[in-house]
Formats: sequence, structure tokens, C-alpha cells
Amino acid sequence: MGTTAKALALLDQFSIDRPEIGLSDFHRLVGRDKATVHRYLTELEQAGFVEQDPVTRVYRPGPAVLRLATIRETCFPLKSAVEPVVRAAAKELGELVHFSLLQGGALAPVAHHDPHQHGTAVFFDEGAMLPLHGTASGISMLAFGPDALWSGIGAAPLRDFTGQTPTDEPTLRRLSEAARDAGYALADRTFDADVVSVAMPVFGPHAAASGAVAVAAPAGRMNDALRERAIETLRRIAPVLGQSLGGRMPAKTEAQDA
Amino acid sequence: MGTTAKALALLDQFSIDRPEIGLSDFHRLVGRDKATVHRYLTELEQAGFVEQDPVTRVYRPGPAVLRLATIRETCFPLKSAVEPVVRAAAKELGELVHFSLLQGGALAPVAHHDPHQHGTAVFFDEGAMLPLHGTASGISMLAFGPDALWSGIGAAPLRDFTGQTPTDEPTLRRLSEAARDAGYALADRTFDADVVSVAMPVFGPHAAASGAVAVAAPAGRMNDALRERAIETLRRIAPVLGQSLGGRMPAKTEAQDA
Repeated sequence: MGTTAKALALLDQFSIDRPEIGLSDFHRLVGRDKATVHRYLTELEQAGFVEQDPVTRVYRPGPAVLRLATIRETCFPLKSAVEPVVRAAAKELGELVHFSLLQGGALAPVAHHDPHQHGTAVFFDEGAMLPLHGTASGISMLAFGPDALWSGIGAAPLRDFTGQTPTDEPTLRRLSEAARDAGYALADRTFDADVVSVAMPVFGPHAAASGAVAVAAPAGRMNDALRERAIETLRRIAPVLGQSLGGRMPAKTEAQDA
Repeated sequence: MGTTAKALALLDQFSIDRPEIGLSDFHRLVGRDKATVHRYLTELEQAGFVEQDPVTRVYRPGPAVLRLATIRETCFPLKSAVEPVVRAAAKELGELVHFSLLQGGALAPVAHHDPHQHGTAVFFDEGAMLPLHGTASGISMLAFGPDALWSGIGAAPLRDFTGQTPTDEPTLRRLSEAARDAGYALADRTFDADVVSVAMPVFGPHAAASGAVAVAAPAGRMNDALRERAIETLRRIAPVLGQSLGGRMPAKTEAQDA
């Protein structure tokens, strides 16, 4: 790792829960000597990547990140960043893959791709919001998303889409716990009578999931083999999609926590 | 300048108009040898600060900037960053200073401070939008903001607030040109019959102004001396406020262009 990468690695220590870090804490967190850490911080400050509070002397992310984030989002909006990932996964699996983000109490589709490799296809309307209680994406949000989502459950009667849709809080709690244990959610004909889907949460910079990525297939095709392949693919692409939201690749986080 | 600062300086080359840069263009823009530039880019890519298009091989701002921008805006929203700057300027001048951002076809106040050093004060409602045609802030937006603002002028009759408010396009064009020449706009009793104000544009990462900062005083106090002091103060704080929007300090830009 070069000097620049080492200096920039200091910025990985910032999070929503830890938005300000003092020199001593940096020293403790990254295990380098204070003089080196101070030199890195001075260079990062010079370039606008950190700024120091004039009173408390703690550091926080600097204004340069706002400028670069604006350029990135203006010129390469999220959709164009995630579409190739979703498309490649769909082609690999031969099934519909869709990625959606939490918006209020439902999921808004951001990207989807159906490779049309089969005679039957799952109909997906990118303009329609996905309900939390009826879809695999929604169950993974209830399991890994912000706790506040649960306040919407039970506020109004939940629609039964297929006769198999979970519509009561105890059932949803059970499904959400199962998803937390497994790391993915499964929806077996709960939104459409002919569709089974598997979904995983997608984490951005926040501690709770910001969205979900799912594979949906006609029930007749979603056998054990396809489900296993779908889970493998989702496990691989969920962190990549999360990175497009400004999340960190989990591997990096683990390396740091070690 | 240390290695890290030199590597990060590459990122200053990105802009809304130039969101992607190839290795050769970096080499040409920063005047360093290609091997060094490539080494910097590799380290920046490793840390997520640039990402390379797999097909065209050009570089663009990477996902790490989104993560840090989210942390900064969630934990230190713009308002808290600009308030100390506005307050210090107001205390220094002894008059009301306000900062507002373009929102649709008007300016939305973000921060203001009145030091109440005099028996009379300008009333400022932070909840009310500032019209472009009636205020110094608005004239500086017409002069330095996006061209599209002019399409709103003449679309509907403009309100005459004081009998001295410019309400026709030719007059506004003339005032806007005068502001462009001077670098600031002056509004002499055009919004309130007793108030004179001076404003300057604030530039974020975009080429057109994103907002304006103004000094407003009762007409009787805004003499030549105060106007000159106000202009000096605004000239000093406008780039600082712009930096809080993710803009670059002009001094840095000049140094780079030199």
C-alpha cells in the first residue's frame, strides 16, 4: 500500500456513527504513530478531504467530497452505475434480476434486467413500488433495514395479493428473523401467484440496509439448484451495488476490524 | 506538497464539464510524467476515490466520495457549516448578513444573522423565499446563475414591492450586466422601502452560481463606507460559503490554471 492509499485509509474510519475523529483516536484506530497520522491528516486537510473543527480540533469529512459527489451523481447517476451489474447477473442466471431502494415505506425499483432466455418470463413494472410485506426484497428490508419500517406494519391492513401473502405482524416478524438468520429472504408466490423470488439487502453508508437486490423466476423454474445459484450471485453483487450507494465493500471493513 | 496532496490534486481536474479523464489527459493537465500519474491513479482507485471505466479506460470520481459526502451531509448539514461564517461576517459589519440557495425560480434562505448593534434592524424572514427580480441576491443570481433563470422572467407579471422594484426584462438585463461587471449586485429599496442591500454570487461545484450572500441595512445607514466594507467582506466569505457547497476556493483554481 502506497502513502496515498495509507492516508486515504484514514477516511475509512468515518461513519454515520463516528463522523468526527480526533488525532488520538485516529492513532488508536489505525495503529500508526501519531506523527505519521498527523502528517496524513495535514495533507488530507490541505486537499479539502478532511476539515478540522477550530474549537474541538477533531476532524470530519471535508468539502472536497461534496464537490466530487456532486460531479459523480450529476454525470453518472446511480442508475447507470448499477445497470451493468444487474444486467450481467441476470444474463448469468438466465432470470430476472431487480434492484430497488427504500423510499418511504416501500421499495422503488432502480434497475432491472430480464435476459429472456425462456419461454415464460416474470412481468416486472419498473414504475411500480414494491410492497414490503409481499416481496422477498421487502422482507429483506424488514430484516436488515431501519427499525422504523415496522411502524408502518399494522398501521393499515396489508393487502393479500395471492392468498399466500403474509399480512399479519407475527408472521412478518418470523419471516424477517428467518431472513436475518439466512442472510437472504425468500418469497414463495406471495406477490404473484406464479413467481418465487430470492432477495438480499444492499447496504450503503448507513448501518441499516438502503435497498434490496432480487432474483425472480416463474415458480416452476425456481428449483433448489437455481435458488442456490441465485443466492451465490446475490451474495457477490449486493456489496458491489452497495458500493454504488457509497457503501464500503464488506471485505475492506472486515480487514479493518481485524 | 506531499505525495498524498499531489495525488489528491488529480481529483481537482474533475468538473461537471469534465467528469471523465483518461491517463494521457491527466498527464497533460497536471504536467507530471505518466508513470507518476498512473501510480497516483492506482492508489486513488484502490481507495475508491476514482473508478476506471472497464471499456474506455477513462477515470471518474469513485464511490468513496459518495460515502463520505453522505456522512458529512447527514452529520454536519450545510446549515451548520455556513452559520458560523454568516454570523462572524454580520458581527464584523454590524449589519444583517444572509445566505440563500437557488430553489426553482427563487432563493431559499439557508442562514442569516443580525448582530442587533443598532436601534433599527432589517426584518428578515428565513422562511420566506426571496424573489429574483426584487433583491440584490436575486440580481446576482440573474447575473451569475444558470441562464435558464431568465425563462422565468416575463413568464408572469413581476410584482412591484416598493414602487422602485425593477419589473421588466430590459431593466433586469441592464442590472444583471452591471452586477456582472462589478462582481456584486446592489438593490436600493427595491424589496423593502427602507432597505438597501449588496449581494454576491456563491459558486458550488457548478459553473453557474448556486446561491447568493448579502448584506442588508436600513437605507439611512448604507453609506459609501459601509457599502465598501460590505463588498470586501462578501468577497472574502463568498468563496468560503461556496466551499461548503462543495465548490473550490478560487485561489486554488487560479493556482492550477497558472
